[in-house]
Amino acid sequence: MSVNYATPAPDQLFPVAGVRIGVAEAGIRKVGRRDLTLVALDPGCRVAGVFTQNRFCAAPVQLCRRHLELGGEIRALVINTGVANAGTGEAGIQAAWQTCAAVARLLGIEERQVLPFSTGVILEPLPTERLVAGLPACVSDLDADHWHAAAHSIMTTDTVAKAASRRVTINGHVVTITGVSKGAGMIKPNMATMLGFVATDAAIAAPLLRRLVREAADESFNCITVDGDTSTNDSFMLIASGRSGAEFDSADAPGYAQLREAVIGVAVELAQAIIRDGEGATKFITVIAENGRDREECRRVGYAIGHSPLVKTAFFASDPNLGRILAAIGYAGIDDLDVDTLRVWLEAAGDKVLVAENGGRAASYREEDGARVMQESEITVRVDLARGVAAAKIYTCDFSYDYVKINADYRS
Amino acid sequence: MSVNYATPAPDQLFPVAGVRIGVAEAGIRKVGRRDLTLVALDPGCRVAGVFTQNRFCAAPVQLCRRHLELGGEIRALVINTGVANAGTGEAGIQAAWQTCAAVARLLGIEERQVLPFSTGVILEPLPTERLVAGLPACVSDLDADHWHAAAHSIMTTDTVAKAASRRVTINGHVVTITGVSKGAGMIKPNMATMLGFVATDAAIAAPLLRRLVREAADESFNCITVDGDTSTNDSFMLIASGRSGAEFDSADAPGYAQLREAVIGVAVELAQAIIRDGEGATKFITVIAENGRDREECRRVGYAIGHSPLVKTAFFASDPNLGRILAAIGYAGIDDLDVDTLRVWLEAAGDKVLVAENGGRAASYREEDGARVMQESEITVRVDLARGVAAAKIYTCDFSYDYVKINADYRS
Repeated sequence: MSVNYATPAPDQLFPVAGVRIGVAEAGIRKVGRRDLTLVALDPGCRVAGVFTQNRFCAAPVQLCRRHLELGGEIRALVINTGVANAGTGEAGIQAAWQTCAAVARLLGIEERQVLPFSTGVILEPLPTERLVAGLPACVSDLDADHWHAAAHSIMTTDTVAKAASRRVTINGHVVTITGVSKGAGMIKPNMATMLGFVATDAAIAAPLLRRLVREAADESFNCITVDGDTSTNDSFMLIASGRSGAEFDSADAPGYAQLREAVIGVAVELAQAIIRDGEGATKFITVIAENGRDREECRRVGYAIGHSPLVKTAFFASDPNLGRILAAIGYAGIDDLDVDTLRVWLEAAGDKVLVAENGGRAASYREEDGARVMQESEITVRVDLARGVAAAKIYTCDFSYDYVKINADYRS
Repeated sequence: MSVNYATPAPDQLFPVAGVRIGVAEAGIRKVGRRDLTLVALDPGCRVAGVFTQNRFCAAPVQLCRRHLELGGEIRALVINTGVANAGTGEAGIQAAWQTCAAVARLLGIEERQVLPFSTGVILEPLPTERLVAGLPACVSDLDADHWHAAAHSIMTTDTVAKAASRRVTINGHVVTITGVSKGAGMIKPNMATMLGFVATDAAIAAPLLRRLVREAADESFNCITVDGDTSTNDSFMLIASGRSGAEFDSADAPGYAQLREAVIGVAVELAQAIIRDGEGATKFITVIAENGRDREECRRVGYAIGHSPLVKTAFFASDPNLGRILAAIGYAGIDDLDVDTLRVWLEAAGDKVLVAENGGRAASYREEDGARVMQESEITVRVDLARGVAAAKIYTCDFSYDYVKINADYRS
C-alpha cells in the first residue's frame, strides 16, 4: 500500500563496522513475530539523538535523555514493539530501567550505557519479564548484517519495512551510512511513534555529531506530517562507529560536507518512507515554500498546506482545488504576507503549472492543466513567497477514506 | 444530518425593530434557489463586526472593513451565496463596490453605508449583473419578519438553516436578540465561509458594541473548529437598532451584564449550530480546558484536542482512546506542562468518568465506562491543567467517512 516505496533487499543494506544487530521474538504483545531488537556497539562508538517534544513523553525517552546527558559511552540500544511504555508513570521508568539493566548484564556493560526505545500501544504496562526473557536470543543473533531484520522487527502497523543505505568515498575512505525507520502516522491509532536509527562508520566528534543529528532531523523527520499529531515516543538516533578511518572534528573538516549530505540523504529517505506508508496514503506530496523571510515562516506555510484536511482530501480526489491551498497559505500566520505578490505552482513528473498569482488564480491557468498534475502519485506544491531568500520543504500524503477507516476501526 | 439541531420555526424568530430583511433569487450560481439577502437598517442603528484573519481575505471583507472604519452610519447589509468573491483581486473589489452602489441607489443612501458579504465558490468572478438585477426583488420583499427566510437564503452546502432568537426583559424593557448563521466546515470544499449576523433592539454605545462583538465572537465563532481551516470570508456582525428603549453606554451600565449574556447566548447557539452541521458530523464535542495559567494556553489545549484527526476519528468510532487525547495535550505547546498533575474526564448525559491522572490512565478507570460515554452524541472532554484559574471551551465534531466523501467528491 506504500506510495512508490519498497524495502531494499538485504544485500542493499551495507553493514556498518562496529555495529551489530540481533532480533528475537519476545511475545511482548503478539506471538509469532519478532518484536525485540538489540543494537550492540563496539567500544569507541558515539551516539547522539533527538526526541519528541511531546510533554507526555514516554518513559524510555526520559531514560534515553538521562543516559545521553551523563555523557558516558553508549554501548547498546534496545527497541521493543508492541507496547510503547508511555503514560505509564513511575512504573514505566522502572520498567525501562530494568530493561537497560538486563541488557547491561548480558553484555557486561553499565545500565547507563544502554538506550531503551519502545513503540506500540500506549497506557499499557511494559511486560518487562517477557522482554528480558527475550534478550538472550537477541544477543545470540547479533550480526553486522542484520539491518534488514531490524527494519522488520521495529515495525508496528507499518505495511512495509523501511531502510536505506549508502556508501560514499570521502578523503579516500569508503564510508557507509545505513539506517532503519518505522511509523505510518505521526501517532498510529493509540500506537505510538516514529523511530529512526542511522549508523555510519565515520568518526565524528561528539559536538559535531550532536549538531548533525539535529540538522538531519530538521531536514527529514521534522519535515513530515501525516496527520499533524506528534507522538509520545518519537526518537531519531545517529551512531558513528569511527571504523572507516574517515574522521571529522568540525564542520569545516575536509569532506564533511559530503558526509553530511549522505547522512541527511539517508535520513530523508527514511522519513519519506514513513509518509509513503502513511495511513491510507495514495499520493506523496512535497510542499516547498521558498523566498520567505526565514525558514520558520516557510515551514509554517508548508505545514498549513500539509496539515489541512481540505487540501489533503482534494489531493486524494485529484482535484486541483486552488482555493483550499490559497486559504491555507492565508491562515499560516504570516501577518504581513502580501497575497498579491506570491505565486503557487503544482508540479509533477516534469510538468510545472502556475496556478496562482496576483492574489488569485493565474490568468494562464487552465483547470485541465491542474487536473493532469493532480492525477500523479508524486506531486509538488511550490509556493514562492517573494519576500526573502529562506526556504523549507514539507512532506505529506493525501487523506483518504482509508485514513478514517484505519483510525476509526483500529481498536474495535 | 445535523447533530441534535433543528431550525427554529418562523414564529420562534422574533423580529428586531429597525431591521428588515428581503430575499430573492438572483441566479448567482444556481437557479431555483434564493441566494440574495438584503438587510435594511433604519436610521440610528449601530453595526460592529469581526472578520477573518486569513491573509487571502475576500474582496467584500476588505470593503466591509473600509466602510466600518469610515465610521458613518451603516444602513444596509447585502449577502450573496454561490460565489465568494475571494481570490479575485482588484476586479473583486470593483464587483463588491458595484454591489454596494446598486444597493445605495435603491435605498437612497451612500455606498459607504452598505456592507457587502459573499459566500460560495472562491476564485470565481462575482456575476455582478445578475446580483444587481436581483436587488429590486429583495427591496420589495423587505420585512421585519423575514429572519427565517434569511437563514435559508444565506446557506451554501449547509444541510440545515441556522437561526436563534431570544427575548429578555432588562430594566423594564423587552429586548429582542435574533440572529442567523451559515457554515458547515471552516471552509466548505472551495466554498468559503462562516457567516453570522445578530441584531438586537437594544441601544449600545459604539465603543461598547465593538467590544461586545469581539467578546461574543471569542465565546462563540472563535471557539469552533470543524477541520482547523480558516476561511477567506468569515464574518460576524452585530447590529443594535436601539428601538427597545433599553440603552447601554458602558459595561457598568445597569442590566448590561444581562444583555451581554443574552447576545453571547445567541452567538453561541449560532456557532454551535455550525458544528452540529459540520461535514459528516455524527457527534457534538465540547472540549473544556480549565485551571490553566491563561486563556490562551487553555485554548491551545482545547484546539490541539479539537483539531486532532486521531482524536476526531476515535470519537466517530466511539472509542475512548485516551492515548490520542493525552498525546494531543502533550503537544499543545505548553513547554512547562506537568503531565503528572493534570486530570482528564470524559462526560456525557450526567455521566462523568475520570480517565487520566498521575501522568497516565486513572487507576479507577474502566474501559467500559469510557465506552459508555463515547456512545453518546453530545460529549465533553474536560482537562484540568491544575496550574491556574483560566479556562476555555472549544466546540468541535467527530471525523467520519462522510467528511472525506463530502470533501473529496465536492467538485467531481
